[in-house]
Amino acid sequence: MSTTLSVKRTESQAPDGRSWPIPTSEELEASGRGLSQQAEQARAAGRRVVLVQGLGFVGAAVAAVLAAAEDDDGLPRFFVIGLDLPRPDSYWKIARINEGSTPIDSPDPELGQLTRHAALEQHNLVATAWQPAYSLADVVIVDVPLDVTDASEHDARSIELRLDPFREAIRAIGRHMRPEALVVLETTLPIGTTERIVAPLLREERQQRGIDSPLYLAHAYERVMPGPRYVDSIRRFWRSFAAADTESADRARQFLGSFVDTDSHPLTELESPAASEMAKLLENSYRAVNIAFIHEWTLLAEKLGINLFEVIDSIRVRRGTHDNIRLPGFGVGGYCLPKDALLAQWSSIHLFETGHELGMTLEALSINRDMPLHTFDLVSELAGGNFKGKTILVCGIAYLPDVADLRNSPSETLVDALLAAGASPRLHDPCVETWSERPELPLESDFCAAIDRADGIVLAVPHRAYLDLDPLVLAGTTGEPPFLVDAQNVLDDTAAERLHQRGSRVLGVGKGHWRKRGYHLP
Amino acid sequence: MSTTLSVKRTESQAPDGRSWPIPTSEELEASGRGLSQQAEQARAAGRRVVLVQGLGFVGAAVAAVLAAAEDDDGLPRFFVIGLDLPRPDSYWKIARINEGSTPIDSPDPELGQLTRHAALEQHNLVATAWQPAYSLADVVIVDVPLDVTDASEHDARSIELRLDPFREAIRAIGRHMRPEALVVLETTLPIGTTERIVAPLLREERQQRGIDSPLYLAHAYERVMPGPRYVDSIRRFWRSFAAADTESADRARQFLGSFVDTDSHPLTELESPAASEMAKLLENSYRAVNIAFIHEWTLLAEKLGINLFEVIDSIRVRRGTHDNIRLPGFGVGGYCLPKDALLAQWSSIHLFETGHELGMTLEALSINRDMPLHTFDLVSELAGGNFKGKTILVCGIAYLPDVADLRNSPSETLVDALLAAGASPRLHDPCVETWSERPELPLESDFCAAIDRADGIVLAVPHRAYLDLDPLVLAGTTGEPPFLVDAQNVLDDTAAERLHQRGSRVLGVGKGHWRKRGYHLP
Repeated sequence: MSTTLSVKRTESQAPDGRSWPIPTSEELEASGRGLSQQAEQARAAGRRVVLVQGLGFVGAAVAAVLAAAEDDDGLPRFFVIGLDLPRPDSYWKIARINEGSTPIDSPDPELGQLTRHAALEQHNLVATAWQPAYSLADVVIVDVPLDVTDASEHDARSIELRLDPFREAIRAIGRHMRPEALVVLETTLPIGTTERIVAPLLREERQQRGIDSPLYLAHAYERVMPGPRYVDSIRRFWRSFAAADTESADRARQFLGSFVDTDSHPLTELESPAASEMAKLLENSYRAVNIAFIHEWTLLAEKLGINLFEVIDSIRVRRGTHDNIRLPGFGVGGYCLPKDALLAQWSSIHLFETGHELGMTLEALSINRDMPLHTFDLVSELAGGNFKGKTILVCGIAYLPDVADLRNSPSETLVDALLAAGASPRLHDPCVETWSERPELPLESDFCAAIDRADGIVLAVPHRAYLDLDPLVLAGTTGEPPFLVDAQNVLDDTAAERLHQRGSRVLGVGKGHWRKRGYHLP
Repeated sequence: MSTTLSVKRTESQAPDGRSWPIPTSEELEASGRGLSQQAEQARAAGRRVVLVQGLGFVGAAVAAVLAAAEDDDGLPRFFVIGLDLPRPDSYWKIARINEGSTPIDSPDPELGQLTRHAALEQHNLVATAWQPAYSLADVVIVDVPLDVTDASEHDARSIELRLDPFREAIRAIGRHMRPEALVVLETTLPIGTTERIVAPLLREERQQRGIDSPLYLAHAYERVMPGPRYVDSIRRFWRSFAAADTESADRARQFLGSFVDTDSHPLTELESPAASEMAKLLENSYRAVNIAFIHEWTLLAEKLGINLFEVIDSIRVRRGTHDNIRLPGFGVGGYCLPKDALLAQWSSIHLFETGHELGMTLEALSINRDMPLHTFDLVSELAGGNFKGKTILVCGIAYLPDVADLRNSPSETLVDALLAAGASPRLHDPCVETWSERPELPLESDFCAAIDRADGIVLAVPHRAYLDLDPLVLAGTTGEPPFLVDAQNVLDDTAAERLHQRGSRVLGVGKGHWRKRGYHLP
């Protein structure tokens, strides 16, 4: 009796469906030997070796920008190693970069160009899953995530973080790093993490290796913005940093200055890593609070029949004091705004044990999380409260216009509410091909056919493609036009009026005047 | 047996102590006849007659600015009547204006100049307590207050307004106004007040007089700012307005354009008086929320030993999105910020019955109200928790730097907390001579002597005089230097360091580094 044992190698699948086999330990070791040779050659040629740990939305872009940095002679300044784990959810990024394409789906063409040029032409960007690669680097940049697992805005003490993978990533650096290497933390961290978590872990691992030379460690948070200026948000944007000791600060300043355009955007050194960690959390919380504030007033304005867009325009003329007041909208997504205040709150309770609670800030996060449910309420109003058998086309699932970034997409909250209410949501996004986290929800490719099938439409993201649309397309071509909820000020008054004349019922977030003028009650 | 009946005429006393007898009805009638003649002569000379109702911080300034408005030939455009009540708390303003001086204690010299010129030279500004004066006016501007009497931020439904005096003021206009006069409401109002309260009251009074011609009514809120640009905040600043009908809107636009510099600051017409009412409440609530937000993070930063000023500076470099983030501070005063969100909340509950609560915004007001108690906590820390027999000098009682405006002074909250704790607070303010609402708390005139008597000092307002001070003055000349709490970033690091060397213990709101560097624990 014989059994055929079919061992299928584990694969890693990219969001577009392409797969790569994850290398075995032997293959990794072999690639590591090759990489070591490359790094040594580069160092011999006068280039510093930089390792970027974590090839996500930040790391993959930072690696490409570093690889593009040139010295005064126009030669590459760095040999860049992008490192991630040999796992199904991450190995595909390594494979992508080594094929010369960026794993980030971005509207900034420069991101792909820099990656291709560095990986395939200049040969100074190599991605790897070989963990000992840390030992090759003069500088290690940490871009691994530190996620929140329990975001209980209403109970400050119950916030939980996924600390273990982060600690393990830091330990991996300590186990392999050159004694004199500089470690730069770009990850958004709870206040105090650099000095109270990262430094002790690195020191512990180094001590086990018998290293007692000084540790060079700095926090220098990134302000990467998905969108058409992705590369510039790293290379030509403001950067703050801090270290606990002068030598680390000096090395961090010199390193940052070697790829950031500090002529146009001088570096800011803060007094401590904790100050730098807080700055990042504070600036995103500021944004989150201002969005929540306007949402609270949006709900009031709509109930009162007041067009809040017009009101805010009239306030924004006060330049310098009031021009930064936000507009009504659909929801808040992305990696930072929904969670950064939670990191600060966690820090206050667990790292410093102050007991201080950021009550109003956490309330803002809670308001933002539920924001898309207001759009659901408007849809429900137009659906007469009855979703049975109704097809609702959600236009836009990215969290920002004109990007393919789906992290914490507010559209997901809307879609889940529609599903729970018994509706059949359908999705369209001109920038997104597949929603890998929600494979049961296929994206429509034929926009006009999708509209003809829809009972209702939600304009959830102000993608350029929607802004440029002839609004009458939204009325469909057959039968009764679908009702429409404009959650993002996509339509102007004229467009709404034309749709109204075609028989569409239209409601808009923050647009009380549509109600007043009876667009949805002809 | 005979009794000598000594009738002392009721007087009206200005904050500086000067008194004027309040006129009798007969005297008022007589002055009214004179005023009527003046108004008729002015009208015959081609000037429009404008009556400003309420001569407070807004009305007295608006009256002066109107009186200074000139036509194309350089002649006064208006004959301006300032009207207030013949009562002890208001008549002194009338007397002041007619003597050619403004009742507002302002650092803007133009305010006094305009008032004197109009009242004594041009003779086109007359103040009166004669109520029928409304009958003389082509335009009536309403600048009477509408106050909150119960500001329960934690119970949205229990907010109460002092509506009766406001209603009575509006009825007085309706009882006397010319049928075709334009009524312009500058008062900050709950959303819906113009159409749901003011218009019905005016119509009712007009109907009783048999007037059935159209009522011309607009809302055009003011953005008057106490400070060195008081006059410009009326004449050269942005102005929004709205009316329920086109004719009223046209007349309001024409009127506003005749004294506002609309070349540099074009008018904004909003779609409804409710939108205009909301705009004012929203813009001040925006400010209030952003102040509360930073205070919440200030408390965290201090506990963590982080200098929040430095952190915020590093964030503000993000122009356009983050440069409007506020700084740590002492507290929020003035007429508008502590109450405007409450008017919106009252409106939601009582005028529109929406049930919608502005929870996060009201939380911000509550944080702001208690803000000065954090400074009290810092004082308490330096006083070792024991205030018995301790003299604390509070420097600054105005609610803004370099003005004498004491409305809702946050210093009052601090002083009351100090009194409750058993301390002896003493007050100093270079801009204020007397605190008429708190006569039991005299102001120190000799600053240095006051410092020598003090156990502790609070820098509560960043008056120029304090900023320009040699910091060592704060250490006093005799004995142990008083401890010092800088609640408004008055001192820089060098100044704090010098005081520390002199033996002062110093703490600052938002300045964790002082703690870190041990300035208060030598």
